[in-house]
Amino acid sequence: MFDEMISFLNDECGLVPGEPILVGVSGGPDSLCLLDLLVRAQKDVFVAHFNHQLRSESDDEAEYVKTQAARYGLPFLCETQDVKVFAKENGFSIEEAARKLRYHFLFSQARKWEVPVIAVAHNADDQVETVLMHFLRGAGLSGLKGMTPVTQLPEFDPKIRLIRPLLHTWRKEIDSYCREFDLDPVQDPSNLDQTYFRNHLRHALIPEMETYQTGFKQTLLRSIASLAGDYKLINEVVDHFWKQSILEIGSGYLAFNFEALRSADEALLRNLIRRAAVRLNPGIRDVNFDGVQRIVRHIQNPAEQQGRIDLTDGIIVSKEGDHFYFANQNAELPVFHWPQVRGRIDMLTGSQMQLEGGWYFQIVKMEEIPDMDAIKMNSDPFQAWLDADRIGQDLFVRNRKDGDRFQPLGMSNGSLKVSDLFINEKLPNRARRDWPLICMGNEILWIPGFRSAHPYRITHLTRRILYLKLSRSGSH
Amino acid sequence: MFDEMISFLNDECGLVPGEPILVGVSGGPDSLCLLDLLVRAQKDVFVAHFNHQLRSESDDEAEYVKTQAARYGLPFLCETQDVKVFAKENGFSIEEAARKLRYHFLFSQARKWEVPVIAVAHNADDQVETVLMHFLRGAGLSGLKGMTPVTQLPEFDPKIRLIRPLLHTWRKEIDSYCREFDLDPVQDPSNLDQTYFRNHLRHALIPEMETYQTGFKQTLLRSIASLAGDYKLINEVVDHFWKQSILEIGSGYLAFNFEALRSADEALLRNLIRRAAVRLNPGIRDVNFDGVQRIVRHIQNPAEQQGRIDLTDGIIVSKEGDHFYFANQNAELPVFHWPQVRGRIDMLTGSQMQLEGGWYFQIVKMEEIPDMDAIKMNSDPFQAWLDADRIGQDLFVRNRKDGDRFQPLGMSNGSLKVSDLFINEKLPNRARRDWPLICMGNEILWIPGFRSAHPYRITHLTRRILYLKLSRSGSH
Repeated sequence: MFDEMISFLNDECGLVPGEPILVGVSGGPDSLCLLDLLVRAQKDVFVAHFNHQLRSESDDEAEYVKTQAARYGLPFLCETQDVKVFAKENGFSIEEAARKLRYHFLFSQARKWEVPVIAVAHNADDQVETVLMHFLRGAGLSGLKGMTPVTQLPEFDPKIRLIRPLLHTWRKEIDSYCREFDLDPVQDPSNLDQTYFRNHLRHALIPEMETYQTGFKQTLLRSIASLAGDYKLINEVVDHFWKQSILEIGSGYLAFNFEALRSADEALLRNLIRRAAVRLNPGIRDVNFDGVQRIVRHIQNPAEQQGRIDLTDGIIVSKEGDHFYFANQNAELPVFHWPQVRGRIDMLTGSQMQLEGGWYFQIVKMEEIPDMDAIKMNSDPFQAWLDADRIGQDLFVRNRKDGDRFQPLGMSNGSLKVSDLFINEKLPNRARRDWPLICMGNEILWIPGFRSAHPYRITHLTRRILYLKLSRSGSH
Repeated sequence: MFDEMISFLNDECGLVPGEPILVGVSGGPDSLCLLDLLVRAQKDVFVAHFNHQLRSESDDEAEYVKTQAARYGLPFLCETQDVKVFAKENGFSIEEAARKLRYHFLFSQARKWEVPVIAVAHNADDQVETVLMHFLRGAGLSGLKGMTPVTQLPEFDPKIRLIRPLLHTWRKEIDSYCREFDLDPVQDPSNLDQTYFRNHLRHALIPEMETYQTGFKQTLLRSIASLAGDYKLINEVVDHFWKQSILEIGSGYLAFNFEALRSADEALLRNLIRRAAVRLNPGIRDVNFDGVQRIVRHIQNPAEQQGRIDLTDGIIVSKEGDHFYFANQNAELPVFHWPQVRGRIDMLTGSQMQLEGGWYFQIVKMEEIPDMDAIKMNSDPFQAWLDADRIGQDLFVRNRKDGDRFQPLGMSNGSLKVSDLFINEKLPNRARRDWPLICMGNEILWIPGFRSAHPYRITHLTRRILYLKLSRSGSH
């Protein structure tokens, strides 16, 4: 058994020889066994204990772990915080609060002491219980694959690895290890993952399932290894697809090429969506299946649904042109694929003005009247032809002001609020404030992308034409 | 509910409009509901009933299904066979024998009437029970993905599709369908998939699991859909890898490029191995995990293990050079990447002889003595230099005879049995009988690939040299 534990440690945990390891020790059988194993494997070990202050024995247990560290002659790191208070303040369950604080402590200490690896003592029974829990709760492959021998928790640190050297060691084996090597674990330690639900699985459901299949736990552990391999394979496919389809990784948002998503297989899409959610919010432990399906449908039938969709944990998605965004609620999405202008820019006829995000604006005076049919057939809303003789002053571009009004082509009397036009045209809210308006004095002559002004339209009386064009060079 | 059933039928079962469908009808609620649904969906239906002769009511039930078919004005196909006798004769369980005979019947009838699609009545409860059974028994993704709405059973037919239109309809819903549309199913029909184990799952374990997770069955059904998508994704990756690594598809065997397998990710390899097994033996319902792992290890550490390995269900694997074979026990593996000769072929000096499998043999008389160091450094065992003056007769190539002996280079006295040399050199057994031996009279001068004969070696007295070369043009 000891040899198998050592090979698992050396073969499956991805250790680099000589790397120090910080091990979380509660004082219970699992973590004492892990600590002893690492010492026997001649690893360079830091002992770390987080005192959850949840039980009256907590302080004694911290003291006990300290003596154990001293016995091995190892550095001992300890911290304490009131889990109940933290849970209450943040609306977490006690278990969730304990987990967050404990990992926060372990990762901070690892960073502080420049230890690249943290070892925790999850065992094979924990693994089976976890996967059964996921099975009951309807997890996909990412849940059924269970815990992995090496992983990362990017919500705590982007680099430090978390290893689980006891993941294939059964609780029974750990108990005999403790007996064999005279370890004296704290009994009934504050093992906070042992919730009521998990305890019930352990003591009632799993034994029941074993009556259906002898060796069910061992069998499941083997399946988990196979599923973890399949999960890794899928991840490679998703990696590839991600690289093919991502357009931008912004602060709090991701943009993908909409057509790439639309033409992808549904399962691939589901995996990409889950990964995007986790990337934006690394703390998400389970991405809601229905939310994922809503987005899949939204991508497959973009006409059916409009606007933004809530995915889960405050992540929203929205489509704008060829960009499909995943964003945190408060992220500033990029606007530079829209023309935008802040303040006012004066225009000179014949010259070219540069706006933000690769957009150019130009005005050309045409001495000859172009083909009127071509003008009527115009399908590019970013060009306009105005009657030059009606334009007596210099033009300028500015963004919107409150109360801006405009008389669009075809409206022979009265005017529209610019803000209403934007709403009618479904211009995304974020784009409205700095949308360029082509003006002369107090009048708006053209709103690029939408309409030119009725009074400046070309008629059979027009002799000279002002041609305006907004264009974009390349993509950002 | 009816609308959902119709959309599942139309959207998930991959039907081509106008295709006839053969539906297996036992007379129970599921299959009567399915039949009625297909009729209401205006499909072109053939009713097929297999009489298992397992219960006293069997004949009455066959008669009843016949009247149902008549009621809808549909063609009725029926056959009967004694399942118990068939099971006994072939060593199958009753359930397995019934399944084989039933599907054999359905597929034969579909072929006979040129019906491209067979519909069977598995429902959502069957699906959940099946996946739970796989979960208990330690299945990988291929088991946890459950039954699919469209599939094929290549052991019965390579083209006909099997569809399961009720796969998302619960047993309760089927019962209310039967009530709503006044269907009068046979009660307790000979539903042979309902083994003791499955019944126990249905009536004990699943209700128990529902106390742990409200809506467990619905949740699991949703997970299954997600896992099926992931399985499909993996299958595409495996497809690609298969195409990259396969060298040959033979009768009863498959050959893969060994290096391609060796450099592959373990999970990918496991999937390829499973697929190869199913390809060779389409009847395999579950490929043994341990067998797969043995092969993975064999591929990753080829030096550690030699010879052939049993995978499962009579499938063996073996490695020969760059070829890695999966074969049925009795398959004739190809030998044409070895030089082989049957009988005797006379040789002419200076000419080139063609052997089987793209091998060529040539003899060249050299009038000048080549660089002796180059000869000593020779690393190609398929070329040899002999002393031409010691060779008085014409050479020929033949395969081995019982009792062949040979005096290899370096052995100045006595001789070796050729068969012993082959064993020492670990030449695969199958290659030995027809391995080419270069002979003159009763003597063997050279065994290509291994040794030339001591008496014909080049010495400082050699004046003229006979150069022999066996080579292979391209790959097959």
